[in-house]
Amino acid sequence: MSESSVDYELFYWPGIPGRGEFIRLALEDSGARYLDVARGPEGVKAIMRMLRGEGFAGAPPFAPPVLKHGALVLAQVANILHYLGPKLGLAPTDEAGSQHALQLQLTIADLVAEVHDTHHPLSNALYYEDQKDAARQRSVIFVSQRMPKFLGYFERTLARNGAGEHLVGDATSYVDLSLFQVVEGLRYAFPRAMAAVEPTVPMVVALRDRVAARPGIAAYLISPRRLAFNQNGIFRRYPELDLAPGEE
Amino acid sequence: MSESSVDYELFYWPGIPGRGEFIRLALEDSGARYLDVARGPEGVKAIMRMLRGEGFAGAPPFAPPVLKHGALVLAQVANILHYLGPKLGLAPTDEAGSQHALQLQLTIADLVAEVHDTHHPLSNALYYEDQKDAARQRSVIFVSQRMPKFLGYFERTLARNGAGEHLVGDATSYVDLSLFQVVEGLRYAFPRAMAAVEPTVPMVVALRDRVAARPGIAAYLISPRRLAFNQNGIFRRYPELDLAPGEE
Repeated sequence: MSESSVDYELFYWPGIPGRGEFIRLALEDSGARYLDVARGPEGVKAIMRMLRGEGFAGAPPFAPPVLKHGALVLAQVANILHYLGPKLGLAPTDEAGSQHALQLQLTIADLVAEVHDTHHPLSNALYYEDQKDAARQRSVIFVSQRMPKFLGYFERTLARNGAGEHLVGDATSYVDLSLFQVVEGLRYAFPRAMAAVEPTVPMVVALRDRVAARPGIAAYLISPRRLAFNQNGIFRRYPELDLAPGEE
Repeated sequence: MSESSVDYELFYWPGIPGRGEFIRLALEDSGARYLDVARGPEGVKAIMRMLRGEGFAGAPPFAPPVLKHGALVLAQVANILHYLGPKLGLAPTDEAGSQHALQLQLTIADLVAEVHDTHHPLSNALYYEDQKDAARQRSVIFVSQRMPKFLGYFERTLARNGAGEHLVGDATSYVDLSLFQVVEGLRYAFPRAMAAVEPTVPMVVALRDRVAARPGIAAYLISPRRLAFNQNGIFRRYPELDLAPGEE
């Protein structure tokens, strides 16, 4: 699509799903007309202009993803989804529901940050190979304690909410789409650990399956627009970090 | 105050300012009637009931701080402030300003998480003494690269916004109050590193001074309600992690 025929422009590092994927899933599910700017020519230069705050008013982004909608430029995944949710029909419309969706998305963001730090516990400025020992120590605790705690939290949240089909409200929201992506990412990064945890969170797994079957998502997942997880992203597969229960 | 005479109830671990302080500053600045529940008798038990989701509907909190307002229970600092901001007169009322305030608060949250991980890079489940080497490595990069990058980002954001007195909009918002707390925390945790960085971010320092002089904040800071930074919180002073430029 050209810029003139789209409603939204997304700016995110090309080559990884990363944090941009949480925005893509909402746009794709709802069939929004958007341009994934940085996957086109000169795309990374366009990101850099955004980070320098060129061409728009208001707070500049600290980091991608960035969404441009008309004159408005927004950063931070949960902030972007809080803005997009009502416009795409992917958020509760009442105040309590809207705030709880944001709350859950921020908890997902915390989980995603912890996943990132399993392979980069010291710094993004160092290679994985230069922080392998720390990564192993952090991962032991992540897969045995933090991952089950977070997933158990989402299981409890589902169990509290009506028929347990949605994390918030009575319809699919951006938070449900994001939890799908988290499950996919954890399966990629920690297949052995996830195989052990999944039987304890059946409602989370069922939610993942329902999201995958939604028409917009199903079509997206088999399209070239969907980027595979890989070793440059947030969710990475280092077998030495994927510990089954009882291993250390 | 008793429960019946307050509008808001805050639930946060007693004994540390921590993430609860970002909520307290907004409540104190605006003179809101609130109860700091966990600093009263049986307070930690009240937090635990909240975390179990007892006595209210909707998504349970993953962690404190938690705010209760009428029947609504909210968690996640940025989510709580997004809710409180308009009610306390501490947020822009237009959509773009509201979203930019949330975006900036989320960037502050990212910085705060990185500060926490300077002393606990591997896990909260381990003592500092058991992760000192990793903490030193993480802190070297934090104080030399990340802290200047974040503070420089807020400096640029101020410089872009009108007279440079506020991070967003044309009046003091919860984001300004939060940046005050970040500067205070960084001065406590990294006095030598901050002394080197502060001259490069004069607008951030001037904002800190203006916030400290606001009547509600000034009165709060000398009250017993204001908790001092200490070695159990997010901002901790370990001299071995407070590196001046050029030291490693």
